[in-house]
Amino acid sequence: MSQQDQHDAAADNADTNATTKTIEPSGRPAVILTGDRPTGPLHLGHYVGSLRNRVEYQHEYQQYIMLADSQALTDNMEDTNKVHRNVVEVALDYLAVGIDPAKSTILIQSQIPELAELTFYYLNMVTVARLERNPTVKAEIVLRGFERDIPAGFLTYPASQAADISAFKASIVPVGEDQIPMIEQTNEIVRRFNRLANRDVLVECKALVPEIGRLPGIDGKAKMSKSLGNTINLGASADEITAAVKKVYTDPLHLRVQDPGHLEGNVAFIYLDAFDTDKAALEEMKAHYTRGGLGDSIVKKRLEAVLQEMLAPVRARREEYAKDKGYVMQLLKEGTMRAREVAAQTADEVKAALGLRYF
Amino acid sequence: MSQQDQHDAAADNADTNATTKTIEPSGRPAVILTGDRPTGPLHLGHYVGSLRNRVEYQHEYQQYIMLADSQALTDNMEDTNKVHRNVVEVALDYLAVGIDPAKSTILIQSQIPELAELTFYYLNMVTVARLERNPTVKAEIVLRGFERDIPAGFLTYPASQAADISAFKASIVPVGEDQIPMIEQTNEIVRRFNRLANRDVLVECKALVPEIGRLPGIDGKAKMSKSLGNTINLGASADEITAAVKKVYTDPLHLRVQDPGHLEGNVAFIYLDAFDTDKAALEEMKAHYTRGGLGDSIVKKRLEAVLQEMLAPVRARREEYAKDKGYVMQLLKEGTMRAREVAAQTADEVKAALGLRYF
Repeated sequence: MSQQDQHDAAADNADTNATTKTIEPSGRPAVILTGDRPTGPLHLGHYVGSLRNRVEYQHEYQQYIMLADSQALTDNMEDTNKVHRNVVEVALDYLAVGIDPAKSTILIQSQIPELAELTFYYLNMVTVARLERNPTVKAEIVLRGFERDIPAGFLTYPASQAADISAFKASIVPVGEDQIPMIEQTNEIVRRFNRLANRDVLVECKALVPEIGRLPGIDGKAKMSKSLGNTINLGASADEITAAVKKVYTDPLHLRVQDPGHLEGNVAFIYLDAFDTDKAALEEMKAHYTRGGLGDSIVKKRLEAVLQEMLAPVRARREEYAKDKGYVMQLLKEGTMRAREVAAQTADEVKAALGLRYF
Repeated sequence: MSQQDQHDAAADNADTNATTKTIEPSGRPAVILTGDRPTGPLHLGHYVGSLRNRVEYQHEYQQYIMLADSQALTDNMEDTNKVHRNVVEVALDYLAVGIDPAKSTILIQSQIPELAELTFYYLNMVTVARLERNPTVKAEIVLRGFERDIPAGFLTYPASQAADISAFKASIVPVGEDQIPMIEQTNEIVRRFNRLANRDVLVECKALVPEIGRLPGIDGKAKMSKSLGNTINLGASADEITAAVKKVYTDPLHLRVQDPGHLEGNVAFIYLDAFDTDKAALEEMKAHYTRGGLGDSIVKKRLEAVLQEMLAPVRARREEYAKDKGYVMQLLKEGTMRAREVAAQTADEVKAALGLRYF
């Protein structure tokens, strides 16, 4: 089956499945917005925290997945090539894990000017003091070392996020715990706007915090992150997986095989918890490790087998799509055009409510 | 001659005159950007400070005149109707004073989404600290009594102004002395962008400060302003002009006709200086007033005659156009579409330079 056939088959399938999607009390299908800043390849942390869920969401909700290239520029103005390059790479990751462009609408943020337009108007609906109080913004400012030299676009990005969410009238936004203040700020803007407009033009949204939180890096650091060099990428080769598993942090006190090992903070077991589908065998292994007599090498062997098995088809699909990036870009173009129609409609309603419709 | 014929004739004329417009060293015609926030009728202060000049500029430059409705919203979110209503009213003022839509491009800011889009990207090219240091922004924040509750859109409006100016590649921007920091900030953004892009995508601009500065209000206050209730509107009726001239502030020490009068701060003479074309007679009148023996009533009689004569044809043209607001909106639509093509071209160049061109 050619890629185009696959695509068409998926589209047919989406039509047949359309009726199974969740319907809101308003009668509209529930809309979910997710996305990523295209600044590097996606890794197991993304998979656990969001990608895996999105593959499910696309059956339940009308799902928009945004490649947030404009937002990525807020702190990447000196390396715009990186952002450009990673748009197609992240899209490949999406397709590789099973996001279906016929079920989910994948869009490129910068190609929808209406998102910038909505941001522009929302900037009038939030005060500087309020933005400065946003805990997420505060934390990120420290994280990125901006101090006094915060680009205005960084301070104001909650308005941009409100634009992205409200443009598609998303009522569900999957985010980490630390991003909840962004959702609150979006809803403040939505409510203020609806009050001004005297009717519910925009839709409030709910944060959907995934049960499994953050995946630690292979080095045991709390977060798997490209900048920390402690990731296993979704497109990792078999050799890269082998090398990464060798470096996986376990129990530093577990020096001799016969000693009892600890599970807490033990990345090998955290990963097995996340990815090993044979839960019974895993529980047995944990018990053995805890009472002593099970070496790290056995645990890591199991982890490697699990990861190799899980990532082999992902890598294969990724390589297949990567052969025809033109086709991937065509998928992105179609998704973006579909999304733009929706965003343009919202922008039109917003502008009309602000008295900005003349012709 | 119908309005459409007038329009067509003017368009022909513009074509013939095109070659007389100023050409920049780059070989491009010099572009000038002017405009107003449509929050109320224009008055003599606008006429002296800018409108009168624009009637001249349109022969020399490629002139864009922006009805800055989006910008007006930054501090009028609670009265969006006022802004909407005044768009056509200000356009009528333009046409009434002799701005020719075939020679000047009149545009409505909100109808060009690319202006919001450019603003969005420029926000990454200016820091919050730099915006807070902008003297014009600081002064306006005090003036509008925002204190801590500054709408983000107000703090960031220099980025929006940079978008407006650079979208049309304007090299000349007529502004009051107090707006010079805005021009400097635009040029900082332009230079930073061109450095990033590694070529001159955007054009730096020069402030053009008019020789005749601000016109005082009829009450003698430094500024003629709708909110101070001390204006003479361009569309004022003959009776309104008569009533306003009666209230014009003169010399409070000039109690008896035979006393010497003072010219300094004497609004009657300031207006005569601005509008009386018979300079010889005016000098004679000033000398007489200064040495004593000339009553305020004579001075005001002259002022009234001058203003009535000047404003009668303006009012007549305004009333003529006001009969067909649909036609005026059509002119605005045409101007806006013409302007949008230029702005879209710039936005496209800007996005390409930022690596945001994919399809």
